[in-house]
Amino acid sequence: MSPSKNRILTNLSKDYEQLKELVHRDAKADDVGTLLAELTTKALDFLLSDCKQIALVSKVPGKRYFSFSLRRGEKFSRAVNLELFDPRVRNKLNSFVDGSLTKLPLPDRTRLLYTIAIAYCCASDLLKTRDQKTPATFFECLIGHLIARSFGVNPRTQVEVLHLEDEASTLPTDFIFDLGPAKPKFHIPVKTSTRERVIQVFAHQRVLDGVHGFGTFKGILICLTETKLDHKNREVIEICVPKQWVLYHRFIAPMHRFYYFDIPSRYSELTKGNPPMPIVAFSKFFEEVEDLAAGR
Amino acid sequence: MSPSKNRILTNLSKDYEQLKELVHRDAKADDVGTLLAELTTKALDFLLSDCKQIALVSKVPGKRYFSFSLRRGEKFSRAVNLELFDPRVRNKLNSFVDGSLTKLPLPDRTRLLYTIAIAYCCASDLLKTRDQKTPATFFECLIGHLIARSFGVNPRTQVEVLHLEDEASTLPTDFIFDLGPAKPKFHIPVKTSTRERVIQVFAHQRVLDGVHGFGTFKGILICLTETKLDHKNREVIEICVPKQWVLYHRFIAPMHRFYYFDIPSRYSELTKGNPPMPIVAFSKFFEEVEDLAAGR
Repeated sequence: MSPSKNRILTNLSKDYEQLKELVHRDAKADDVGTLLAELTTKALDFLLSDCKQIALVSKVPGKRYFSFSLRRGEKFSRAVNLELFDPRVRNKLNSFVDGSLTKLPLPDRTRLLYTIAIAYCCASDLLKTRDQKTPATFFECLIGHLIARSFGVNPRTQVEVLHLEDEASTLPTDFIFDLGPAKPKFHIPVKTSTRERVIQVFAHQRVLDGVHGFGTFKGILICLTETKLDHKNREVIEICVPKQWVLYHRFIAPMHRFYYFDIPSRYSELTKGNPPMPIVAFSKFFEEVEDLAAGR
Repeated sequence: MSPSKNRILTNLSKDYEQLKELVHRDAKADDVGTLLAELTTKALDFLLSDCKQIALVSKVPGKRYFSFSLRRGEKFSRAVNLELFDPRVRNKLNSFVDGSLTKLPLPDRTRLLYTIAIAYCCASDLLKTRDQKTPATFFECLIGHLIARSFGVNPRTQVEVLHLEDEASTLPTDFIFDLGPAKPKFHIPVKTSTRERVIQVFAHQRVLDGVHGFGTFKGILICLTETKLDHKNREVIEICVPKQWVLYHRFIAPMHRFYYFDIPSRYSELTKGNPPMPIVAFSKFFEEVEDLAAGR
């Protein structure tokens, strides 16, 4: 690895470790937002100065994708949606930090959030090898901060599931947000992509429905994208299993919302199905947050 | 790769491809049993002649494990249970082919079945790199043949899940065995190990219970082992989540049986729990098959 690449990696890794610590301590705190903005700036600097953009063959109707690649080298980042990625975000990160994000017009907010979510992940793809965990954890920290700030409460990562006779068990989950006594509680799995593993999301929701009664924990899946890049032929596909989703939503447990940063059209069609499934752009969360907090 | 190793790999791969084809055509047929015995003989010849046995540090109370390793080279096979592996099986494979397997005393039958299941997997571990699929598929073929022969019917690998208004969907599964009109039907997931992915097994069962009514498809998980070998320090552990199993069995869907070739003791304790969970040595399947076919 070149000295400059090594320096960037060290720098980003230090920030990443600090991010995990800050989120663990107080996910909704301002310093988390500041650090997320700093990490995004550094990742964008690296991607825009040290990398080139390679057009990909999009097999996804109506969407164009590209990949970042080091100037020398064969390594590719994950696929980036051309319409949703906006390098000018670099100058707009203050709106992320000061909370005025929610006042941005929806298309701008969508691009800002997508760019923040994908920039660090792409930098990590290029700077590290076979590391799925770092981007996934970064994405969890980003979501944890945004939801905690919106609801004004910090998440837990497990939930008590009490038995009549036995000792108490706990169910490990991504996030549980509890807005307080007689207020809504949310079960929020967070995934950079779900593919066929999505059944776990519905199954966890089912356990919570079974233990605590229907509607006690509302299930909200938050997902970055369902794209998959074939590095050999540079083709991008979306891996979607809409028929399985309908089965899981009907027969395992219904979810309250499915938020995507880059919505797959085959899932967005499920909003017109029977029962209609609530698949929504994540940028709309900030408009729905009052309704959600009111139990709607 | 040495020429002799290459020859063995080519030979085993040819048989493996043929096995998949024969099982697909008629899983219960005698030629499947004959080919499974041949593959096992070849795998054992390779393991006993060309490999050495390396003792492992067992972190599993009451069980000892070893690993096969090429005479030259650092590569290790998966962990093998010392008490359950029996190289003399090489001379007893006729009882597997002619169906007299069921007449063997239980301890002999347990060792015979374990040795058949693990031998090919270990050979594949040593001859191939990063290949999880081949051992998993071999194990599925072995189970598919044994169950099909015992029930006298071949499996399907998907099940129709009909909707009132929509087009029919199908749920892909490992095996569905349907003993005929007014007779039991079985949903049989087959895994070399489950770890935290076991939630899928219960969730699929839940979909079948929801679509077809409770008890229509009885769920039977068949699993080789839950061991995990840390190649660096040569330690074997069992990855078990018994508290999660109880939650899933109670709140997602109850399973009819859990069969193991190498039962983890932390799961076998669940047979004494509330509700008691039916965790059984796979060798006992052949004694229970009449009960199962009678819907008990």
